[in-house]
Amino acid sequence: MWFASDNTSPAAPEVMAAVLRANQGHAASYGADAAMARVTERLREVFEAPDAAVYLVPTGTAANALALACLCPPWATIYCHRTAHVEEDECGAPEFYTGGAKLTLVDGSHGRIAAEALEAALGFTARAGVHNVQRGALSLTNATEAGTVYTPADVARLSGLARRHGLPVHMDGARFANALAFLGCTPAELTWRAGVDVLSFGGTKNGCMGVEAVILFDPARAWEFELRRKRGGHLFSKHRYLSAQMEGYLGDDLWRTLAGEANARARQLSQGLAALPGARLMHPTEANAVFAAWPRAGHRAARAAGAQYFLWPGHQSLEGAPDDLLSARLVCNWSTTEADVDAFLQTLHTGAPVAVR
Amino acid sequence: MWFASDNTSPAAPEVMAAVLRANQGHAASYGADAAMARVTERLREVFEAPDAAVYLVPTGTAANALALACLCPPWATIYCHRTAHVEEDECGAPEFYTGGAKLTLVDGSHGRIAAEALEAALGFTARAGVHNVQRGALSLTNATEAGTVYTPADVARLSGLARRHGLPVHMDGARFANALAFLGCTPAELTWRAGVDVLSFGGTKNGCMGVEAVILFDPARAWEFELRRKRGGHLFSKHRYLSAQMEGYLGDDLWRTLAGEANARARQLSQGLAALPGARLMHPTEANAVFAAWPRAGHRAARAAGAQYFLWPGHQSLEGAPDDLLSARLVCNWSTTEADVDAFLQTLHTGAPVAVR
Amino acid sequence: MWFASDNTSPAAPEVMAAVLRANQGHAASYGADAAMARVTERLREVFEAPDAAVYLVPTGTAANALALACLCPPWATIYCHRTAHVEEDECGAPEFYTGGAKLTLVDGSHGRIAAEALEAALGFTARAGVHNVQRGALSLTNATEAGTVYTPADVARLSGLARRHGLPVHMDGARFANALAFLGCTPAELTWRAGVDVLSFGGTKNGCMGVEAVILFDPARAWEFELRRKRGGHLFSKHRYLSAQMEGYLGDDLWRTLAGEANARARQLSQGLAALPGARLMHPTEANAVFAAWPRAGHRAARAAGAQYFLWPGHQSLEGAPDDLLSARLVCNWSTTEADVDAFLQTLHTGAPVAVR
Amino acid sequence: MWFASDNTSPAAPEVMAAVLRANQGHAASYGADAAMARVTERLREVFEAPDAAVYLVPTGTAANALALACLCPPWATIYCHRTAHVEEDECGAPEFYTGGAKLTLVDGSHGRIAAEALEAALGFTARAGVHNVQRGALSLTNATEAGTVYTPADVARLSGLARRHGLPVHMDGARFANALAFLGCTPAELTWRAGVDVLSFGGTKNGCMGVEAVILFDPARAWEFELRRKRGGHLFSKHRYLSAQMEGYLGDDLWRTLAGEANARARQLSQGLAALPGARLMHPTEANAVFAAWPRAGHRAARAAGAQYFLWPGHQSLEGAPDDLLSARLVCNWSTTEADVDAFLQTLHTGAPVAVR
Repeated sequence: MWFASDNTSPAAPEVMAAVLRANQGHAASYGADAAMARVTERLREVFEAPDAAVYLVPTGTAANALALACLCPPWATIYCHRTAHVEEDECGAPEFYTGGAKLTLVDGSHGRIAAEALEAALGFTARAGVHNVQRGALSLTNATEAGTVYTPADVARLSGLARRHGLPVHMDGARFANALAFLGCTPAELTWRAGVDVLSFGGTKNGCMGVEAVILFDPARAWEFELRRKRGGHLFSKHRYLSAQMEGYLGDDLWRTLAGEANARARQLSQGLAALPGARLMHPTEANAVFAAWPRAGHRAARAAGAQYFLWPGHQSLEGAPDDLLSARLVCNWSTTEADVDAFLQTLHTGAPVAVR
Repeated sequence: MWFASDNTSPAAPEVMAAVLRANQGHAASYGADAAMARVTERLREVFEAPDAAVYLVPTGTAANALALACLCPPWATIYCHRTAHVEEDECGAPEFYTGGAKLTLVDGSHGRIAAEALEAALGFTARAGVHNVQRGALSLTNATEAGTVYTPADVARLSGLARRHGLPVHMDGARFANALAFLGCTPAELTWRAGVDVLSFGGTKNGCMGVEAVILFDPARAWEFELRRKRGGHLFSKHRYLSAQMEGYLGDDLWRTLAGEANARARQLSQGLAALPGARLMHPTEANAVFAAWPRAGHRAARAAGAQYFLWPGHQSLEGAPDDLLSARLVCNWSTTEADVDAFLQTLHTGAPVAVR
Repeated sequence: MWFASDNTSPAAPEVMAAVLRANQGHAASYGADAAMARVTERLREVFEAPDAAVYLVPTGTAANALALACLCPPWATIYCHRTAHVEEDECGAPEFYTGGAKLTLVDGSHGRIAAEALEAALGFTARAGVHNVQRGALSLTNATEAGTVYTPADVARLSGLARRHGLPVHMDGARFANALAFLGCTPAELTWRAGVDVLSFGGTKNGCMGVEAVILFDPARAWEFELRRKRGGHLFSKHRYLSAQMEGYLGDDLWRTLAGEANARARQLSQGLAALPGARLMHPTEANAVFAAWPRAGHRAARAAGAQYFLWPGHQSLEGAPDDLLSARLVCNWSTTEADVDAFLQTLHTGAPVAVR
Repeated sequence: MWFASDNTSPAAPEVMAAVLRANQGHAASYGADAAMARVTERLREVFEAPDAAVYLVPTGTAANALALACLCPPWATIYCHRTAHVEEDECGAPEFYTGGAKLTLVDGSHGRIAAEALEAALGFTARAGVHNVQRGALSLTNATEAGTVYTPADVARLSGLARRHGLPVHMDGARFANALAFLGCTPAELTWRAGVDVLSFGGTKNGCMGVEAVILFDPARAWEFELRRKRGGHLFSKHRYLSAQMEGYLGDDLWRTLAGEANARARQLSQGLAALPGARLMHPTEANAVFAAWPRAGHRAARAAGAQYFLWPGHQSLEGAPDDLLSARLVCNWSTTEADVDAFLQTLHTGAPVAVR
């Protein structure tokens, strides 16, 4: 019962098979491997973006920070949600890679930036003159850190606000596949057609060992990206092992299939929790994470049964809730089984540990 | 006939097997996996350094830059050989990670810093006052970029000079295994016992997919290293795949065995080249790379036969050499076979392409 | 009627006289001038801090950013008020000089950090692990950007909270003299005795041309400060002209006298505004700035009379105020006269421009 | 007998008078003062560059580092002479302001970059790919650190080499006036007409208290410069005191007059030294500094007489010179008198201290 994070999951068999296949004889290094050319071609097709520049890096933090450094000068600020990964979970990587840019935290319910809040932040007059940092870039996380999703219309609206101030738009898509699986739209609709300039396209959390693609829909800053990647220590010499993971991940739309499975398990979990006496959902369950609060007794039973998940801030803000409630984040992944979820729910319902795995 | 770089080689079967074994079920992320604890323990044993802090990163550039950033403040300079990887092949990663430190280039034949040159550089009086950057750290590459090796005595002598100015010492050991295989000494003798504070311990070039260990013999700056690693985007969420590579690499002294094989192939190649009419060795062949010059006809035959290697500066400085000579770098790796080397040498000797692989 | 900023004021005659006296013959450069030794001695006496290290820089931004860079590593955050100069008016200088640290914005009424808000910010659990930036330093502005003042007890309380988390404390004292003039305490009581580690001691706004002292009560990082100052381009070769300004400023307690005069003018202005029909004070007037709102007609008259000041956010938040109110900031300085203030008030009262100067 | 540096000199009376005149009543801050508009206009006339952007900063280090940061990205290198101020005397300010660019040291006799050496450095093939830092900018110092001068033809030749690689050109003109006074050409001929993009135009060493102009002949990066200046803490609030210095300095061509006087004293000194038995000039004396070697006895006498100057590396390389020679740098400035020089020379000739001043 591992619900702590999707990054505790193993890699998918198809991805590992691709890595093993790549381990034959010698191969050109630093991204000149043949597999990388195929990955680029495939991602351009998937995104209907024949001119896009595509690069692989090993972590989501690297993908985000490198992308943002290409979009935002040191003397500017990045608008992001208060709970964005770039703010809360990267130890200042965006500040480091940009050379000291700021992050401006924007509010909005359920992990989504509210348009009015963004408008107010962009309108802050002190950004106009030489005395404060300038407006730099907008960064959207999709799926969000609250397990919700921006629709193409949401993205277009926020991007439009950014565009009015001349700002480029980055999308942190560590869970992009989960967002897409929920929405059923095309990758293009959710990105460049909605105003996104650069996408961090996640693989690690959804079936890979460690690989993320950065897709620059406008390739004008591609060479700058390459230099920043190298300078950041993220250009792999034996690049074929990144390419192979991504190739395996893209093959037969595996990425969409895996994300769909993770989302389905989250829905199952969410529905089960909603039916639990005294429990409340904190956010709508759209992608692969469930945020819910339930009585302490249930938590005790779950812990006793070996369930792994993080308590998460939130229950404090529930109106009219009994003191007994504790909120938690539960993340499903491609390898989570129906039985895992059932066992977890049964534990909560019966208050008794259920042995699994 | 792949002699372009050891990073064109595949991963060793034992390493891949360890990775596959690691791909079972869920595992704790960000370095909290059980395998990482075993790797730390094993490296402490190998280096007879029970207090050392050990971290894994995916590339040699990350290992070097992060290590140096912990040793050298932004307003100081790193003394390194003019041809060091940190100077020539990392697109300024040390400057980036340190926040703008300098590199002071020190000369010395065969890729080794000359003690007198280091002494002169350290003695440069402008380093004393507030007007210039201060003395920061010494970085030694072992094995060197010229395929040669510093002995423990060499390291101790240079470290001693650094120590007199209060400088810490970093060793870029991307090919540390090859140096050790040549010397036959213990890892401790070549590092902390000879005055090395931090070692970048390479795995990638010698049989892994992409993993390097950074070993801080003095753990005082371990937490700083962790923060810098995270901030640089080099903390893997699915860390188990780094741990597994390193565990496979360390098991049964595989790392030493593989390096010994690569070195043996380089010796074979070196001896064959020495016997080639008109050829000259540019540097002693001690580790797994051969630097030699030979007549153009041989190069043409080699290229026609599909041999891969880089022409390398050097022949210009050969005294009394005919204009016809061109120098090259040839790197062997753990998977290079005796037959590969024989075929290559035969091509040079006969001037005719020999079909291999 | 110049109320736009205290930095529109001229330098005091005593300061200019000192500069002229300094302009005799040759003098040692880079801070080795005899006057600098006297300045250090005098500031140590004034602050009862015989071991303090003292440095001069030309701007408040340089003083703050250099001080903070010595206190806060790149991977940490500086706690400051939401309206602090380091956040709003330095174009990211703290981020630049620290190498990419964050600023965490803390709320509190009337420009003063609220203890509970600081406690909550310091307690934010995400600061504990490797994934987010660490707790770095506390920066207090005294007098604040709202024209109010922290008492020694206020400073001690906030410093105490910081100290519990091991954080050092910086005070932005661009208007330190104004705070002291209001409080009547000793410089030591308002700084190191209340837990302040480093003070930016302003001269520019209060009668100098351009000089600020940075006082490190603990001299442990003095050499680091010197290197950072030089590296930032803030070490003056003809340093005597900085020393002379500061010496003139400190002589006969000129700095306290001038600040007392500026504060007195602000009180006069504040009392006059409080008596204006329909006007409201936004903040208590403690130092040399008045924040008030009054009807548009008065603003029109003031503008017509040539009064210079900035409209300032704030009236929006006044409860039950008529739409007609507009808030403004009015800053007095050492050279503001009673007649200036009277003329301004008369203009507002009569609604008719009054010719002055 | 102050020959240690031109920065030990006082400010010229005309400059101080201008500063005093500026100290009347209130004035707009942050560069919006009327005097700055006049300074910009005047420098555009002087340089025949009606579109140039002009900014003032207080130190030469700030001028150089800010200018270079606008020309050279973090992943590139600045080509400069081995003895350039940006390399030897700024504690890494260019590295700091650029965000970690390198400096590539180019040789050449008498402080001037040799064209062949620059060509070789620019041709270094490792600068082409992603693995090393890229070619960034050329920085020329005129007058040089060896007291010599680049002619317009020299500048054009070196700029042309840079231009072939697409590199912009910076000129460190801390002693630009001295170069111009020697050459007798126009400011335009020595700068933009010869391929210079940005000039650091020195005032401090030649009669000001502390002010340098940065002239961007192409104003495209003017706004970036303003943001970098503010972010570096170099935007003066009471900017009028910088403007006034520069206005006084430019008035009646004072800057050229003062430089001419300093150069004349250096010539006088140089000729006197050339006539001293056993003495040798190290470099041609073209600007206001003399580099010469003479017997120890003369140094002893000079020290005894209170003469101030720095011993300077150089005599070691004199062929056939007696061991007894010690080389030194002697810098004249606008306030050096004929009598000062005579007294110094007499001391050397007679071996006896001569009382002066």
